[in-house]
Amino acid sequence: MAADPFIGWMTDIQQRVERTLEAALPPAEAEPCALHQAMRYATLGGGKRVRPLLVCAAGEIVGAAPDNLLRIGAAIEMIHAYSLVHDDMPCMDDDVLRRGKATCHVAYGEANALLTGDALQTLAFEVLATPLPGVAPAEQLAMLATLSRAAGHAGMAGGQAIDLASVGQPLTLPELEFMHLLKTGALIRAAVLLGARAGTPLPAERLARLDHFAKRIGLAFQVVDDVLDCEADTQTLGKTAGKDADNDKPTYVSLMGLSEAKRFARELRDDAFAALADFGPAAERLGALADYIVARSF
Amino acid sequence: MAADPFIGWMTDIQQRVERTLEAALPPAEAEPCALHQAMRYATLGGGKRVRPLLVCAAGEIVGAAPDNLLRIGAAIEMIHAYSLVHDDMPCMDDDVLRRGKATCHVAYGEANALLTGDALQTLAFEVLATPLPGVAPAEQLAMLATLSRAAGHAGMAGGQAIDLASVGQPLTLPELEFMHLLKTGALIRAAVLLGARAGTPLPAERLARLDHFAKRIGLAFQVVDDVLDCEADTQTLGKTAGKDADNDKPTYVSLMGLSEAKRFARELRDDAFAALADFGPAAERLGALADYIVARSF
Repeated sequence: MAADPFIGWMTDIQQRVERTLEAALPPAEAEPCALHQAMRYATLGGGKRVRPLLVCAAGEIVGAAPDNLLRIGAAIEMIHAYSLVHDDMPCMDDDVLRRGKATCHVAYGEANALLTGDALQTLAFEVLATPLPGVAPAEQLAMLATLSRAAGHAGMAGGQAIDLASVGQPLTLPELEFMHLLKTGALIRAAVLLGARAGTPLPAERLARLDHFAKRIGLAFQVVDDVLDCEADTQTLGKTAGKDADNDKPTYVSLMGLSEAKRFARELRDDAFAALADFGPAAERLGALADYIVARSF
Repeated sequence: MAADPFIGWMTDIQQRVERTLEAALPPAEAEPCALHQAMRYATLGGGKRVRPLLVCAAGEIVGAAPDNLLRIGAAIEMIHAYSLVHDDMPCMDDDVLRRGKATCHVAYGEANALLTGDALQTLAFEVLATPLPGVAPAEQLAMLATLSRAAGHAGMAGGQAIDLASVGQPLTLPELEFMHLLKTGALIRAAVLLGARAGTPLPAERLARLDHFAKRIGLAFQVVDDVLDCEADTQTLGKTAGKDADNDKPTYVSLMGLSEAKRFARELRDDAFAALADFGPAAERLGALADYIVARSF
């Protein structure tokens, strides 16, 4: 039986992302050990690495250097990992299980988890501030500006703040979409855009089309997450299932119903595909990745 | 009576830093309001702005553009402000009073305080990633690398992790110095170095001398803080006094005694001054600032 070449590519990238993160994280045996161990615990050995995969697939379109793409992907993955550590803390979602193991604050204590998230965010910017061979410093500076906007008050952190304020509130669909556009969408978009800026420059119009693709996929990713949270049991999911419904958080499933949410995810995927149509074979991987992300729940 | 020109300069810079922070922070009335208001609450209207003052004074040596120095100073001050917000949280120092007002988590709740610190750190990097007129992008990238190293696991966050692990532990003086070199020293050094890199490039040897100056001042700053924490009452200090002793945290005063700690602070200041000797009148302001920082406790 021939192996699926897309799965082969994905597995290869996941392994190389893991090695890149390994090398960029501080060694576990160096002082302060608890911080370094917790940073590694929260980042290594788990996760689907969706954001680095998007960086690499988008980078293929512009012929970017693979090592640069891995470094950009590792930086974005550190931002993602920091957000999970802080999101799981008692004052936020108060979750005890993540990727099938104890959450960071359960394993290392709350204070260390706080510092771990902080230091992971800082390290993400340090990794992206280290010169990328062949990339113009001005372009790299623009990448840093894009990533920081995507992660901050107008992006991921802002989305979390809206999420926080929305517990027990009846959100409308547009409000829910705005929240997710920031909370998970901003970092997904940054992944695609940074990958697409790491090689031969694209015309603004084509970059905008990739951005539209990323927006749709980011939203699809969230709808699928809501579907999974509703359908899966805790063991399959590797995190506490049914958490959102328990917390009375608005989700696509609670607002649309399960089958309508699945239909919406497929619609978003099709719209994303349409945005890739003009890119030809160079964007095949990105399309396959979008399909893979959305297909998780069907 | 003629006004002291140094105090005049300081007041002017403090006001301009305030306006720079005002403009860089998200508006209070924009969604998510709670996050934006808490970010402004934690950053504006308080603090001595020691780090931006150091940026500006160091920048005078190399003839850097004042607006660039203010932007760099604002970025470093945001890192400082984020660290205070997280440091005050219940799982860390559990402090209720900061700069004479309720700490961020008391005023806005724990979850918002967590996100506020996170978003302030992100905004610091966004501010520093926005092109500085007249500064080469490669140089600005190097500034971002310096600031991220100073703030992360090998700098401020690492120092906080050591501090955390040291509660109730008998630290030696070298261990205490190492902790402070990271916890407060790293950001003070970054302030001086970023200011000194914002204008006409300095030879490496002179940059190293400024770094030595910054190291000594950073340590002196901490020794003075310990002295103040021991001597001052809560009202004068604007934060809860005697907190470190209550928490059984090692301090310079607890290890050296009060008068020896004061003598040590003066020795550090003199050593810092010696490192500035060759710079002539261009470094007068930096020297006066060092004197001001250390003189607080005498």
